[in-house]
Amino acid sequence: VSADLKNAHAPNLATLGEFGLIDRLSARCRAAYPPRVRCGIGDDCAVIALPHSDEVLLYTTDLLVERVHFLRDGITPRQLGHKALAVNLSDIAAMGGTPREALVSLAIPPGIALAFLDELWAGLMDLADHHHTSVVGGDTTSSKVDLVLSLTLTGVALANRVLLRSGALVGDTIFVSGPIGESGAGLDALLGGKAADWPALVRRHLEPQPHLGVGQWLGQSGLAHAMIDVSDGMAQDLGHICEQSGVGARLFADALPLSPELVRYARAAGRDPADFALFGGEDYVLLCTGAAELGPRAAAAGHTLVAIGEVTASGFCLRGPDGDVPLRQAGFDHLRGAPA
Amino acid sequence: VSADLKNAHAPNLATLGEFGLIDRLSARCRAAYPPRVRCGIGDDCAVIALPHSDEVLLYTTDLLVERVHFLRDGITPRQLGHKALAVNLSDIAAMGGTPREALVSLAIPPGIALAFLDELWAGLMDLADHHHTSVVGGDTTSSKVDLVLSLTLTGVALANRVLLRSGALVGDTIFVSGPIGESGAGLDALLGGKAADWPALVRRHLEPQPHLGVGQWLGQSGLAHAMIDVSDGMAQDLGHICEQSGVGARLFADALPLSPELVRYARAAGRDPADFALFGGEDYVLLCTGAAELGPRAAAAGHTLVAIGEVTASGFCLRGPDGDVPLRQAGFDHLRGAPA
Repeated sequence: VSADLKNAHAPNLATLGEFGLIDRLSARCRAAYPPRVRCGIGDDCAVIALPHSDEVLLYTTDLLVERVHFLRDGITPRQLGHKALAVNLSDIAAMGGTPREALVSLAIPPGIALAFLDELWAGLMDLADHHHTSVVGGDTTSSKVDLVLSLTLTGVALANRVLLRSGALVGDTIFVSGPIGESGAGLDALLGGKAADWPALVRRHLEPQPHLGVGQWLGQSGLAHAMIDVSDGMAQDLGHICEQSGVGARLFADALPLSPELVRYARAAGRDPADFALFGGEDYVLLCTGAAELGPRAAAAGHTLVAIGEVTASGFCLRGPDGDVPLRQAGFDHLRGAPA
Repeated sequence: VSADLKNAHAPNLATLGEFGLIDRLSARCRAAYPPRVRCGIGDDCAVIALPHSDEVLLYTTDLLVERVHFLRDGITPRQLGHKALAVNLSDIAAMGGTPREALVSLAIPPGIALAFLDELWAGLMDLADHHHTSVVGGDTTSSKVDLVLSLTLTGVALANRVLLRSGALVGDTIFVSGPIGESGAGLDALLGGKAADWPALVRRHLEPQPHLGVGQWLGQSGLAHAMIDVSDGMAQDLGHICEQSGVGARLFADALPLSPELVRYARAAGRDPADFALFGGEDYVLLCTGAAELGPRAAAAGHTLVAIGEVTASGFCLRGPDGDVPLRQAGFDHLRGAPA
């Protein structure tokens, strides 16, 4: 094989994609984890054992970059501060955990007013206070062009009840903790210049509410087996559970919780509302698998869990009026972009 | 007072500076810390109490932004990965702590080759392995222009021995754990296009070595009272200790550990080598205060601590051949830039 041929086949970032890159880089870390690392790269949070404790520590981090994750004139600074923390809180929720401490870093480009930062901070701190989360550190620096926010959040969970992506069992029911697709439709409206006509959908995209209450209840119930939050698109996020659990999944098209507002938007846009629900992303509801009685048990406890499918031995499909059709595990990939 | 006058006096980012902004934003967090937050925003690490443990958790985070903290053609990717972790390890060292877990986020602009990321990762992982630090999570995303790295590092320290900035006592001796000013001179050489002539100084800037060994020894000795790492410039970092301890300081000009290479560089550049030592920054040595016998005790244990001054009741000065002269608390401010 000549050097040229070898180069032609060498992987690059676009062919690897976000998840291929993570696999490539994390191989060396994973090989050397000490026993206290109960779960490292590859779940919503890292899980670290604490000596002499029935609790584990949870760590998660998210980077928000201007012109990639948000446009400065497409979101208010208060919403931006809220969302930066909300997406991390959602990762803690996805483990069945309770948030504790946050670290907040800002890279500030020229032209950002102090009032913008005050508002951003107010949005972040209002949500932090609501969820009893303490901001204990961070870093402030300048940047040349784009505003960057980096948040790290810690949390705790019961050691024997922490919910990983890898625990799904064949026969489990698949649940989501709220309507899906609204955030994706809101983004579509924003990008199409129709935000003023669809304020509820746009707010679902700009002001996601992390599902901590139902997450903690699921963690304590002992009836759930696997969980993830819906950030990159439901099909892709369910795909992560299937891969890491070594199982398949069948979703039921008529069970997807599509809100009337989403259905109206999809009709107006000439789109299938299920496309937003399956591939839209950023809903920040929880997707979990477990015993069928989780649904009624959750309802009795004041929580919402909608059964949308079942865990199978293999395959990945959507059952619609014409029977089972293969489902793409597609969703947002930050190094490739939106699904084709 | 008219609205115009009020606006003229309204604070902005440049007048506030990095530390004014941190004070402004952190006021609300500090007011609400629960008892488990033993130290929040304002030290090298946050310090969090653990139930049923004689250890505390340490958290620190740093953001590295292209064209602000580094130039892509001024540092090798391997050095960049090393440095991103080293500056966080130095914060753990400054508490007398031991590093544990790291979270690494990357925002990757177009045109970055996979080989660049492989090298960056190798530099980071080599240092992580050397200090038994596990990379347990992170986030990968794209960016439009600049490469951004965000690292969060956790550590542990003995609860009754953790070294804050606020513990300095009048009469303490002030020590540094190695030569100072070389990194600042190396940066000066880099920016002046003379890197090839001063490889040792440039390497001190691009490949800082965190002083974890002496930091842990200081934490266990019980003889040190306050500690910080020298990141923004020694005078400014000592100023943080003085402010947070409510004390003053006197440095002795002839005691500053200036390496022969730094002295040679300063002579060639027509500069005072003490300027690099006092205001240069990024040396990542430790600056601590404590009992005078720390120096010989450290030497006996195989560590270096150089006595450079004394903690006084008030004032901030440098004693030179002409007696005491006031010392500027100047150093790098990311929202204002280098000292005038």
